[in-house]
Amino acid sequence: MNKFYEKTLSSEIVFKGKIFDIKHDEVQLSNGANSFRDIILHPGGVVVVPQKGNKIILVKQFRYAISEAIFELPAGKLELGEDPFIAAKRELLEETGYQAQNWQCLGFINTSAGICNEKLYLYKAEITDFIGQNPDENEIIDYYEFDIQEVFDMIKNGKINDAKTICGLMRAYKL
Amino acid sequence: MNKFYEKTLSSEIVFKGKIFDIKHDEVQLSNGANSFRDIILHPGGVVVVPQKGNKIILVKQFRYAISEAIFELPAGKLELGEDPFIAAKRELLEETGYQAQNWQCLGFINTSAGICNEKLYLYKAEITDFIGQNPDENEIIDYYEFDIQEVFDMIKNGKINDAKTICGLMRAYKL
Repeated sequence: MNKFYEKTLSSEIVFKGKIFDIKHDEVQLSNGANSFRDIILHPGGVVVVPQKGNKIILVKQFRYAISEAIFELPAGKLELGEDPFIAAKRELLEETGYQAQNWQCLGFINTSAGICNEKLYLYKAEITDFIGQNPDENEIIDYYEFDIQEVFDMIKNGKINDAKTICGLMRAYKL
Repeated sequence: MNKFYEKTLSSEIVFKGKIFDIKHDEVQLSNGANSFRDIILHPGGVVVVPQKGNKIILVKQFRYAISEAIFELPAGKLELGEDPFIAAKRELLEETGYQAQNWQCLGFINTSAGICNEKLYLYKAEITDFIGQNPDENEIIDYYEFDIQEVFDMIKNGKINDAKTICGLMRAYKL
């Protein structure tokens, strides 16, 4: 018998925010015990590995949650009902100013499966034309080119610690 | 002048949960604009890559947030004020029943830097004595051995999509 399940007994939205909501559920485990789960409901998003020859384009922005400006792959959240592939092209253009070709889907990741339903779809693409950045309101974001090997050195020496960026590069180059 | 900062204008805890809280802050960007940030405050945690010869031990458990039982590296959250290395040894023993030697720190990751301050410390270790599982109350968890190459195949073919697991294996073997 499958013991890996939890049955929802009750569910209540206890926080509504601009980016995510929180639900507080009572669940019954397969051993009969009851417990509570606070779950972050997130619309999901996309991450792009933009390649330019032997270089990668990363963006830099301040992340208020960790009080730090970090280098990361271009990424963004899905609009309501948006196709992830459309969102990936949109986010790459908004954040770096580039269009791209030879798009390849690299699957998805769950960023924090214990507490959050956030699912990020990963893509790799070869950049082509520079159109110009068009960041969201309240996004201050720069883009930089790095040698691919330099990016892996940054993951190794702890200069890049952003999970989606590490996962995107793993799926793109290391498997 | 550094444009990558946001100044806190006000901060309020708007949700208190068992695992995480939420704060709602008003911030001023470096361009003078004001905005709001909802941030998940998480105590942080640990992830262990437990090696046994050419095998890796993964655990399987149901993750209510994503409605799925998944294979992942042993992991858990920090107790208040707990040293991450102590937590790593504790979580490995609780979830797999194994002690380990030759512990190596692999740095940390931020799981979702846009919305959450969760920081996971990564370790690699060689397992030694089997003492016996001692999972947390309300954790139903099994452990399995996989060939290291098989685990990378599972990341490639989308059977493993858990970000902390992919990052831990990247830092342990692919750099």
